[in-house]
Amino acid sequence: MSTQYSVLGTRPIRHDGADKVTGRALYGADFQLAGLLHGFVVRSPHAHARIKSINTAKAEAYPGVKAVVTAADLPESGDRMVDLGEGATPLSYIRGNVLAKGKVLYQGHAVAAVAATSVHEAEEAAKLIEIEYEPLPCVLTAPDAMKEDAPILHENLITKELGEKKGGPSNVAEHFRFEAGNIQEGFAKADVIVEREFNTATVHQGYIEPHNATVLWNNDGRVQVWTSTQGAFVVRDTTACVLDLPVAKVKVTPMEIGGGFGGKIPVYLEPVAAVLSKKSGRPVKLLMSRKDVFEGSGPTPGSRIRVKMGATKDGKIVAAEATLAYEAGAYPGAMVGPGAMCIFACYDIPNLSIDGYDVVVNKPSTAAYRAPGATNAAFAAETVVDEIAEKLGIDPLDLRLKNAAVEGTRRADGPKYKRIGCVEVLEAMKNSEHYQSKLEGPNRGRGVAIGYWFNVGLPSSCTLSVNADGSVALVEGSTDIGGTRTSISMQAAEVLGIPVEQIQPTVADTDSIGYTAVTGGSRTTFATGMAAHDAAQDVVRQLKARAALLWETTADNVEATRGVFQSNGHSITFKELAEKLESTGGPVIGSAAVNPKGAGGSFAGVVVDVEVDPETGKTDILRFTSVQDVGKAIHPAYVEGQMQGGSVQGIGWGLNEEYYMSPTGTMMNSSLLDYRMPTALDLPMIDTIIVEVPNPGHPFGVRGVGEANIVPPPGALANAIYHATGVRMERLPMNPPAVMEALWQKSSSQPS
Amino acid sequence: MSTQYSVLGTRPIRHDGADKVTGRALYGADFQLAGLLHGFVVRSPHAHARIKSINTAKAEAYPGVKAVVTAADLPESGDRMVDLGEGATPLSYIRGNVLAKGKVLYQGHAVAAVAATSVHEAEEAAKLIEIEYEPLPCVLTAPDAMKEDAPILHENLITKELGEKKGGPSNVAEHFRFEAGNIQEGFAKADVIVEREFNTATVHQGYIEPHNATVLWNNDGRVQVWTSTQGAFVVRDTTACVLDLPVAKVKVTPMEIGGGFGGKIPVYLEPVAAVLSKKSGRPVKLLMSRKDVFEGSGPTPGSRIRVKMGATKDGKIVAAEATLAYEAGAYPGAMVGPGAMCIFACYDIPNLSIDGYDVVVNKPSTAAYRAPGATNAAFAAETVVDEIAEKLGIDPLDLRLKNAAVEGTRRADGPKYKRIGCVEVLEAMKNSEHYQSKLEGPNRGRGVAIGYWFNVGLPSSCTLSVNADGSVALVEGSTDIGGTRTSISMQAAEVLGIPVEQIQPTVADTDSIGYTAVTGGSRTTFATGMAAHDAAQDVVRQLKARAALLWETTADNVEATRGVFQSNGHSITFKELAEKLESTGGPVIGSAAVNPKGAGGSFAGVVVDVEVDPETGKTDILRFTSVQDVGKAIHPAYVEGQMQGGSVQGIGWGLNEEYYMSPTGTMMNSSLLDYRMPTALDLPMIDTIIVEVPNPGHPFGVRGVGEANIVPPPGALANAIYHATGVRMERLPMNPPAVMEALWQKSSSQPS
Repeated sequence: MSTQYSVLGTRPIRHDGADKVTGRALYGADFQLAGLLHGFVVRSPHAHARIKSINTAKAEAYPGVKAVVTAADLPESGDRMVDLGEGATPLSYIRGNVLAKGKVLYQGHAVAAVAATSVHEAEEAAKLIEIEYEPLPCVLTAPDAMKEDAPILHENLITKELGEKKGGPSNVAEHFRFEAGNIQEGFAKADVIVEREFNTATVHQGYIEPHNATVLWNNDGRVQVWTSTQGAFVVRDTTACVLDLPVAKVKVTPMEIGGGFGGKIPVYLEPVAAVLSKKSGRPVKLLMSRKDVFEGSGPTPGSRIRVKMGATKDGKIVAAEATLAYEAGAYPGAMVGPGAMCIFACYDIPNLSIDGYDVVVNKPSTAAYRAPGATNAAFAAETVVDEIAEKLGIDPLDLRLKNAAVEGTRRADGPKYKRIGCVEVLEAMKNSEHYQSKLEGPNRGRGVAIGYWFNVGLPSSCTLSVNADGSVALVEGSTDIGGTRTSISMQAAEVLGIPVEQIQPTVADTDSIGYTAVTGGSRTTFATGMAAHDAAQDVVRQLKARAALLWETTADNVEATRGVFQSNGHSITFKELAEKLESTGGPVIGSAAVNPKGAGGSFAGVVVDVEVDPETGKTDILRFTSVQDVGKAIHPAYVEGQMQGGSVQGIGWGLNEEYYMSPTGTMMNSSLLDYRMPTALDLPMIDTIIVEVPNPGHPFGVRGVGEANIVPPPGALANAIYHATGVRMERLPMNPPAVMEALWQKSSSQPS
Repeated sequence: MSTQYSVLGTRPIRHDGADKVTGRALYGADFQLAGLLHGFVVRSPHAHARIKSINTAKAEAYPGVKAVVTAADLPESGDRMVDLGEGATPLSYIRGNVLAKGKVLYQGHAVAAVAATSVHEAEEAAKLIEIEYEPLPCVLTAPDAMKEDAPILHENLITKELGEKKGGPSNVAEHFRFEAGNIQEGFAKADVIVEREFNTATVHQGYIEPHNATVLWNNDGRVQVWTSTQGAFVVRDTTACVLDLPVAKVKVTPMEIGGGFGGKIPVYLEPVAAVLSKKSGRPVKLLMSRKDVFEGSGPTPGSRIRVKMGATKDGKIVAAEATLAYEAGAYPGAMVGPGAMCIFACYDIPNLSIDGYDVVVNKPSTAAYRAPGATNAAFAAETVVDEIAEKLGIDPLDLRLKNAAVEGTRRADGPKYKRIGCVEVLEAMKNSEHYQSKLEGPNRGRGVAIGYWFNVGLPSSCTLSVNADGSVALVEGSTDIGGTRTSISMQAAEVLGIPVEQIQPTVADTDSIGYTAVTGGSRTTFATGMAAHDAAQDVVRQLKARAALLWETTADNVEATRGVFQSNGHSITFKELAEKLESTGGPVIGSAAVNPKGAGGSFAGVVVDVEVDPETGKTDILRFTSVQDVGKAIHPAYVEGQMQGGSVQGIGWGLNEEYYMSPTGTMMNSSLLDYRMPTALDLPMIDTIIVEVPNPGHPFGVRGVGEANIVPPPGALANAIYHATGVRMERLPMNPPAVMEALWQKSSSQPS
């Protein structure tokens, strides 16, 4: 394949653009069915309590109510373990998060649900459900939960201690360690050592569209689901698992999605709506309010991270040690693993020791959030790296370049990198007009940071059908969050040699396309794009045979280049050949399914200038540049959009966002007004620099672009604030009170 | 492939059964969209008139009205010819039938349409459209329209006379002739000659669900259509053609269908709703009333047919001559061709001459109706054959057996039969308990008749995706009218060696599956079934490669039998292998697209006993047996259902149904109450005998089953009435007035 592309790298209008900007696109809340019932979920007011009894009689008798359900309406789990793609998990945890059984583990935990002919009736009836609770002491942070005398969430949770289950009931689900070289020897060689401890708050992905699900449990035992999700097949598999059904009995139609960022992978409402539908015999729709989203869906972990790094005088980092304790929320989580893998992943460090702790607390069960686990970790590591550079008097980008991971570097968790772009990102940052420019004025500072995220492969499927007019229908199973209908179609178009406008993409339901994993892990343009590439090659292969028929030769003798088929002086275009399909044997369908192992991993960097108001502690961003190695930018505008979006989320995480909790585990700011994500007014233009180091594991060199960009902003902001104020921030968010407190501590004086 | 099948020939519950019987299945009229407008079509009160002017101003000003359209809103056609699969046709005819331009050609012809926020507003506004007509003389039957001085419908219509355009404007669109042997010499050898002339009335397919269409002409120029149709791709292609759009701009989602029988192949409402949507910027729904369906959709031709046959004393038919004049309705038609091909297709007759006339009249443009053209023809031919048998004193089935078409017989229009089942059908009739039983009592008679229908191939596509639980999602593009979701799935299941319940079929929209022609021509179980068979073989091929991976061998060494893969002592089931797909390379999708040439042709026969009331002329059916060669009965219950349905429609056509027209071209019985299709109370049990002579053109031997069964009933009924009363009926319907008139003529006396 030539690297001179016709379609890749251009910026066509997205296929779903008109629907999205005119309000025609159908989201889950828009979905209607004849006889639809509306549901309401009753949630726990306690962060930790025993459920002594639930009496639904009055609610059931309320006018308009057709069904009331509790955990008793889900199958019994016993000790059964299931694997939904993230390792063996007790089924009781999965079901328990859908509807609490025995105990509630966080405020907002779903306990019961009502379906009625209107949402108002459902809500009124929900108030009549009598739930008797026995409140228990709650624990809200990882350090508290790890204490000897901490209240225990799960009596059956035994710590997996370095690979083996050990001890009595604990809130520590797992303690693991990654090691390389000899950490003592490493620190012994160091001329300078920096050690700090950091705390980060729970934050939410903050997608605009709340969770929703409409479910019909049909008379033939088939369950149909319409929902907003990052992965229809995962909803299918999880719902089937929770309901004890074969997956073939569940059909999931993905509606349009108003953001997910990892938070729309878990399943919350679908099984509840399903049992309400089974009981009532009618379709049931459930919608979350914003409060429900904050309290009842999955935010990303708060964490405590201790980092110690040592370097020689010439700027070589010789040892790095970290301890990460991540809050899993109410059930064991999956974020500290990638956090620990990523914390030093930008650097080639000979001696490493990383301890990770997955800790349950009385907050909502955590979910993925864009490069899950890596942002907390990079905030800690990049602050320490900045301090080492300062202590050694080396430019912070030069220090990073001196230690940057390259092809062949072994990551802490074992694997060695293939071709990666860490050095190229650092060089692009260093050579940028932004970094080369001078920042002047009081209370101003510049910070830099970098970050890594793996990207993943996982299965994807695609089919292509050639129309007689030379257009092509493309069917795929990846939720389109950021323009992937188009970025996937572009890869098929490139292979077929036709304009992408000639491709009509459809995101299909689980009955209409092969298995396709979630839109997550920066995988969609990579893996589903690869499936589209392969399906297009399948089409080209078949079209060569058709051309061969016309010319009475064999397919081997037909060449295809940029949509023109040639052999022995004959020539025919894709469009002309498409017209002849019926007369040469019928329609042509190409299909492909992949499970690629060559995900490339992506590095991102940020250069940021801030001004900190010393009177209020408020940080204003003066200039922000996001740099990322994306392998190949299929649609540069969407790549820039991802980089800008990730940057803004990283800024919000760094400067403002947090779950502000009462001591008894109530979230005090569970509205978008109080939670305060950054708005356009809070932000400068987010400048982007796309770096393209082709990924050898993809035919067009694609890496994932969706995640790595959120990793460096908090660290870069912390470093910028330091250079503006002289204080090292050790917690997120670095909001005005936090900055003021740090400034006061620095001057060792209290305000009058 | 062994002929001992696991799945084929069983009677599983249909996949869409629960939805259909509980009212969950979504039909076009159920379809809703936000901002939906409701349309109303203004239809001509005249059978033939010039449109002098249309003033829509008052309608446009009516409250709630968002758009008013006329033919002026469709593109100009000029002399352009288009081919939508039935040969070159003037585009002006296709558009003219959608919205009349210049002239109206039948009462009920669409002239204008209104879209408003409610159907009531649309209907009121429609009354305000001022249309000035200049009425013209009308012509309602083929013989009248063929007269020298007949009113001319189309000034540009020149007869195609035996292949060449000739003469001035005419109502005869085409006159063609099929010949074989020497017809004069043939008749010269005959010992007995019978000649009769028959007239049949216009009848309607009578599907329960009226036509409907909802269309959104989106801001990006994409047109989305939701409709009840026998073929989503034909709606796409026709709508695109009428609107001058590339097919890629039109997406058609087929809703469930409440019957079609050929009448839901043409496009009526879709382009009208489209231009209403374009003008209003909102989605528009159009529904036909029953009156609209009768007057504004496509019934099947009335006809005049003259048949002359001659036979030798020993019962060999030596010559047959026919002249068929079929009413095309307002625009040139396509039914007399197949009528002429089928009229003598059951017999091996050395000398043939068949003349066909396609004649336009001031009635709705005709559409296909189950074996289109063949039923009229068989009524005529089978009556004459019966009379020859009577004159020769030969059992009517023996006479037919002596002359039956066999493999190698040349049909009148040229082709020679491959393996066919005409003899087997006649033998099954003769050996049936029904025919062997004795019919006794006054005014009772037994009749037999046989009939032929081609069946067709045409393109079909299918994709299969294997789920991890061993179930399979099947996607196809054939409208499911009679259970084809299941009959297609059964063919995939047979190849895969899994139960059909493990297959979940989906009928997809035109963006989500490869080109698939209409459900018609008895082709769906044949051709789409073949696509499913081939796609399943594609899956098996891929699964062999996966098994080979597991066993470190090559796919060539893996055998697959009934869902078990084996090699060298290793063995794994389909289900077990399905679980291992992710770890062996990702999901598996199989796909296939076919355009088969091996449609088999199907013969059907009827044995019927009647009792005719000599006082009223009413015919009661005492016993009815339908016999058909179906090749291979994939799902015998649906085959029987098709045979019973075709029989009942043939009975209605024979005994009751007709467009009862006023002299000025108004249909006087345009309601189901007055049109009077047979109800369950009018009918005995329809017994069925399935004959299976495998079609060599299909891997499982499938022929089409949907049509041939309607062909023999009217002829069989006519013969039964003769044997009950002694009168030969020469017209359809043979309703009580017609039978009484024939009885009076026979007795040459008038009632007192």
